[in-house]
Amino acid sequence: MGGSPAAAPLGILAGGGPFPGRVAAAAQAAGRAVFVVALQGFAEPAVIGAFPHATARMGAAGQILALLRANACRDVVLVGPVKRPSILDLRPDAEGARLLARIGRAAFAGDDGLLAAVVRVLGEEGFRVVGAHEVLREAVGPAGLLGTVKPDAQAMDDLARGQAVLRALGSADVGQACVVQQGIVLAVEAIEGTDAMMARAGALARPGPGGVLIKLVKPGQDRRADLPAIGPNTIRGAAAAGLRGVAFEAGGTLLHDRPACVEAADGAGLFLLGVEPGAREETKA
Amino acid sequence: MGGSPAAAPLGILAGGGPFPGRVAAAAQAAGRAVFVVALQGFAEPAVIGAFPHATARMGAAGQILALLRANACRDVVLVGPVKRPSILDLRPDAEGARLLARIGRAAFAGDDGLLAAVVRVLGEEGFRVVGAHEVLREAVGPAGLLGTVKPDAQAMDDLARGQAVLRALGSADVGQACVVQQGIVLAVEAIEGTDAMMARAGALARPGPGGVLIKLVKPGQDRRADLPAIGPNTIRGAAAAGLRGVAFEAGGTLLHDRPACVEAADGAGLFLLGVEPGAREETKA
Repeated sequence: MGGSPAAAPLGILAGGGPFPGRVAAAAQAAGRAVFVVALQGFAEPAVIGAFPHATARMGAAGQILALLRANACRDVVLVGPVKRPSILDLRPDAEGARLLARIGRAAFAGDDGLLAAVVRVLGEEGFRVVGAHEVLREAVGPAGLLGTVKPDAQAMDDLARGQAVLRALGSADVGQACVVQQGIVLAVEAIEGTDAMMARAGALARPGPGGVLIKLVKPGQDRRADLPAIGPNTIRGAAAAGLRGVAFEAGGTLLHDRPACVEAADGAGLFLLGVEPGAREETKA
Repeated sequence: MGGSPAAAPLGILAGGGPFPGRVAAAAQAAGRAVFVVALQGFAEPAVIGAFPHATARMGAAGQILALLRANACRDVVLVGPVKRPSILDLRPDAEGARLLARIGRAAFAGDDGLLAAVVRVLGEEGFRVVGAHEVLREAVGPAGLLGTVKPDAQAMDDLARGQAVLRALGSADVGQACVVQQGIVLAVEAIEGTDAMMARAGALARPGPGGVLIKLVKPGQDRRADLPAIGPNTIRGAAAAGLRGVAFEAGGTLLHDRPACVEAADGAGLFLLGVEPGAREETKA
């Protein structure tokens, strides 16, 4: 404690899902102390309960910064989904109101705008924002096929169409996922979440070969915040929606419990494919 | 009959909703005979029953062309929504298979691709495709406020954000509508339809001032096919979803029963606003 910045406890600003706990466990396993700020209404007590932590409202920016400083954190990881707040939801504390004025309303015109502003403000307040994928290297999905099922030509066409749609949408800072079946875009994700979007796509499916889920990092997205994540539940949801496979951005997607993902995909006859970001850039040009 | 092309009966290729009947009635009121080809599963018998008509499957292209020729139609209007078919749904007849081969699979990679191909093929077969808005001039939504309620600054910001999102999506040939609340894109429409998309947005709404529905013509969309349409049900759906107003593309949107739309909007306290396409082009450049 109190030594070099690298030895200082890792601050973890925790949203929902299992990844805040995995980041904390990985840091501890590497011999580093952690302190978790659990975002009220999002962080799951069962996930972060075993680690030193305190709970704060998302709008209580003053309290959050004070907690991180009181626990000597210099590096901070933002991890786990939070419901996108409206300005009115936030009910900022005094420090929060000051930061909000600095961030400006413009940041509320897109997911990345807000996250980028949070990353910037943390930097200005003396913290270094570290990507969850830098701490959890083994959880980052690799390129290529992970299971035994291969996409056929129709599925590859659908993947290409989905990537084009997400690239277009990403330039408007919306959406990281869509479902395409036989060239038809069945559903596009806004803020409802991937599971709800897939369930909808299942109800809209056409006869014949099922669709595919495509989940990508938005173009220009800061990878230190809000990386897309996939877990066994995603695979089971895709199977329930009649999909034939799931593609994610290699190097930019957190895979929760990779063996269980592969087992679920193989068991349901779905492919699970890491798409190279390089290949995206190429098709883009 | 059999005179100049202008005097030949107007062919109407009818999908769902009230507009096929309105096009037929407007043509008859102008002294022109009509013949309706009712697309099975989409055209509503109550709407087209009063006009000379026959029913055909969408895939039965040979039968459709034969019906139009047998009834001496030279001009054809495509009007009323149809569920986007997959290639497998179509079950083309012999002529349909021949046309499908000419259209190619590429046309199935987007709504407009398919519609543009249908318009092209009808042209190659000797028909002239006329836009529903050319027959129903009085049904085309004008620019500006239609009711008494005005959008406030937040609503205007949300409209601008929605227009940017739809422009981006339209370049991927997907979606004509979205809902934005306080800068947050609550929902984006793919093939589920505007009503289902609005209902979802209602369930995802944040506290505070409600969102707005934006419905536009896709950039580059052929206006002779599948113009967006709005009716009193759209307004009631928007009110039920907690929205504060509805914006549509002036000159590119069919308004079904405009007085009832205005009455529904005024009654529910919603604005109803025609957005100038010119203004869109300006923000685009």
